[in-house]
Amino acid sequence: MSSTDLLLTFNAGSSTIKIGIFAIDGAEARRIGKGVIDFRAEPLSLGLTKGQQTVEMPLKAEVTEDLHGVIDETLARLADHFDMTATRAAGHRVVHGGDRFTGPIALDAAAIDAADALTPLAPLHQPQALRFIRALRHLKPHLAQTASFDTAFHATQDDLVRRFAIPRALHDEGIKRYGFHGLSYKFIAGELRRKAPHAAKVIVAHLGSGASLCALDHGVSRDCSMGFSTLDGIPMATRPGWLDPGIVLHLAGQRKQSFEEIEDLLYHRCGLLGVSGISADTRDLLEDGRPEARQAIDLFTLRIAGEIGRMAATLGGLDAIVFTAGIGEHQPEIRAGVAKRLSWLGLAIDEKTNAANDFTISTRESRIAAHVIATDEEQIIADEALSVLRGG
Amino acid sequence: MSSTDLLLTFNAGSSTIKIGIFAIDGAEARRIGKGVIDFRAEPLSLGLTKGQQTVEMPLKAEVTEDLHGVIDETLARLADHFDMTATRAAGHRVVHGGDRFTGPIALDAAAIDAADALTPLAPLHQPQALRFIRALRHLKPHLAQTASFDTAFHATQDDLVRRFAIPRALHDEGIKRYGFHGLSYKFIAGELRRKAPHAAKVIVAHLGSGASLCALDHGVSRDCSMGFSTLDGIPMATRPGWLDPGIVLHLAGQRKQSFEEIEDLLYHRCGLLGVSGISADTRDLLEDGRPEARQAIDLFTLRIAGEIGRMAATLGGLDAIVFTAGIGEHQPEIRAGVAKRLSWLGLAIDEKTNAANDFTISTRESRIAAHVIATDEEQIIADEALSVLRGG
Repeated sequence: MSSTDLLLTFNAGSSTIKIGIFAIDGAEARRIGKGVIDFRAEPLSLGLTKGQQTVEMPLKAEVTEDLHGVIDETLARLADHFDMTATRAAGHRVVHGGDRFTGPIALDAAAIDAADALTPLAPLHQPQALRFIRALRHLKPHLAQTASFDTAFHATQDDLVRRFAIPRALHDEGIKRYGFHGLSYKFIAGELRRKAPHAAKVIVAHLGSGASLCALDHGVSRDCSMGFSTLDGIPMATRPGWLDPGIVLHLAGQRKQSFEEIEDLLYHRCGLLGVSGISADTRDLLEDGRPEARQAIDLFTLRIAGEIGRMAATLGGLDAIVFTAGIGEHQPEIRAGVAKRLSWLGLAIDEKTNAANDFTISTRESRIAAHVIATDEEQIIADEALSVLRGG
Repeated sequence: MSSTDLLLTFNAGSSTIKIGIFAIDGAEARRIGKGVIDFRAEPLSLGLTKGQQTVEMPLKAEVTEDLHGVIDETLARLADHFDMTATRAAGHRVVHGGDRFTGPIALDAAAIDAADALTPLAPLHQPQALRFIRALRHLKPHLAQTASFDTAFHATQDDLVRRFAIPRALHDEGIKRYGFHGLSYKFIAGELRRKAPHAAKVIVAHLGSGASLCALDHGVSRDCSMGFSTLDGIPMATRPGWLDPGIVLHLAGQRKQSFEEIEDLLYHRCGLLGVSGISADTRDLLEDGRPEARQAIDLFTLRIAGEIGRMAATLGGLDAIVFTAGIGEHQPEIRAGVAKRLSWLGLAIDEKTNAANDFTISTRESRIAAHVIATDEEQIIADEALSVLRGG
């Protein structure tokens, strides 16, 4: 225990809440621990890491709609390991900032309502963070809370890039491309500034169970593969990415499927799981010998390579690609599969450095550099929380 | 009038039926005239061209559901200019061949029913040709009829390219990428064989009021921008092209729009018309000084360039691009706009030859060639009809 000020970050997803514990160290937030509440576990489980040690503990609290019990118990468990009385703020990842929030904000009651007003744009994702924020506000009314938006980093994109070819009125009402995974891309842009300062036109592949690509020009977002919803772009664990809208019309019109059935299909039964019929996890698919598994992997790399081609046209060139997030950081086969499809652009991968997940995995002769960078969304949440606290 | 055998082609669209009159000249079909029935005109109008002469004539027939009157009168008018008693066959463009028809077919009653069974895949387009075929069969029961399918040329595409990341069962049931404008691409592939035999990897941009792109490798279709329906790919006159499927869910789920409203929106109120709010016609938009018109054109060229980038990844390279169809053949500004966005690939356009709609519009130094080729879908319908008649 120490008397250093602490900052907590919360990243609420559909099945887990990731917690970051940061020490405020001058102007910097330095991670000193992390936790994850796993809602898929029975009973509910909290994993906590401090230094080299990780402990798993069951939680006694029931999962209620307001989450009060779970959060209360989690904070109590955190207090066994960290001086929670020194907590100065909690920073949250919120999926959708719409056009309104293009940077982090302090969360007072009005701001929470304003973020809630964006729920129609992300009905499946926005409520998760807001429920957590409201619960924490209820339990710790004096704790400063901030929000970091997944969309904000993409606010720099040109209006043209953000447009669908739909009536202007719909665009003006908010049906446009927002892009997601912005906290990850902001982190990667920061790493690139330090580690590869000469790469101007870079496409970052954030490949996790949700997956997207972002085109950076000098660290600024110029395009991305996810659009209005989290369905678009490249195939994901259970979401399809690029899908002819005529398919939705066909399912509704010819097959008389309900809105709810189609929504469930697109969010939960497509992507790698749908194509393979085996698993939503690339690790399983890479190990599985069946052609259906191979096909899912091949479609994944084909679409990633295609999106990189598309976005290079937006950038007007390509100096480097970066792989990040679970799949991007740890699966050389996927990276090699993508790179092979881009050899026509002069990209060549070094088998050895790729197998070792090194920072640079392209060969010396490669016309386009390829890098692996571990992302850290919580670090950005913490940095942004700190900047909000300091009025920056 | 001559005693040469004749062959008629019919290309039935939503507002016109284009007629081709061909002389059977040994193994070749040689165009000797053309006509167009314009259903937007009041009264109905038939335009007829023979040699250098074009005549416009009103039709007296009422437009009935079975079209019998219109077709009967049209054939009578054709007989004033051509020896219709020498007609040996009628070839039709049919939009959808599904997985079943990968080449042209003779249209007997069973084949017509089989084509009709594909109507759920193209509910707005398939019925137009079938209605016309059935009417002609009723009026001329002994005339041989054949069908040429818009999808057939793309049957060579790899299974992987044709897949969406959706459950395998849906793919197996036919929800896959078929591609359209195949008659046009087949014609262009033939022209390329003669005029640019060394270009292996070519992307063809068929830019009309419907628009798509096709990636050819040695004349064989490997990818295209239109997928399952005619909505997908690049923006069109009134269709959106690439659209996040989440938008359809949003319109249905959050805005409670009906299936019919969304279908009407996507087919008739999107694309260039939707973005500009001014016109669906690039000619109007190029003349119009307003920024909304400029924006629609810019989005059109941005998305075309992006699709070319995506499809170059499928091809694994790019030797040439070809512009065809109304916009592609006649609008240098659009071609220049696309080419500018591809200068990073080494494409450079010659202003003079581009302005003149010459065959080659790229500069001598350009790493990628750019061509303009006039397409002729009716020639392919006629060629295919002839090959069916001869059992080829």
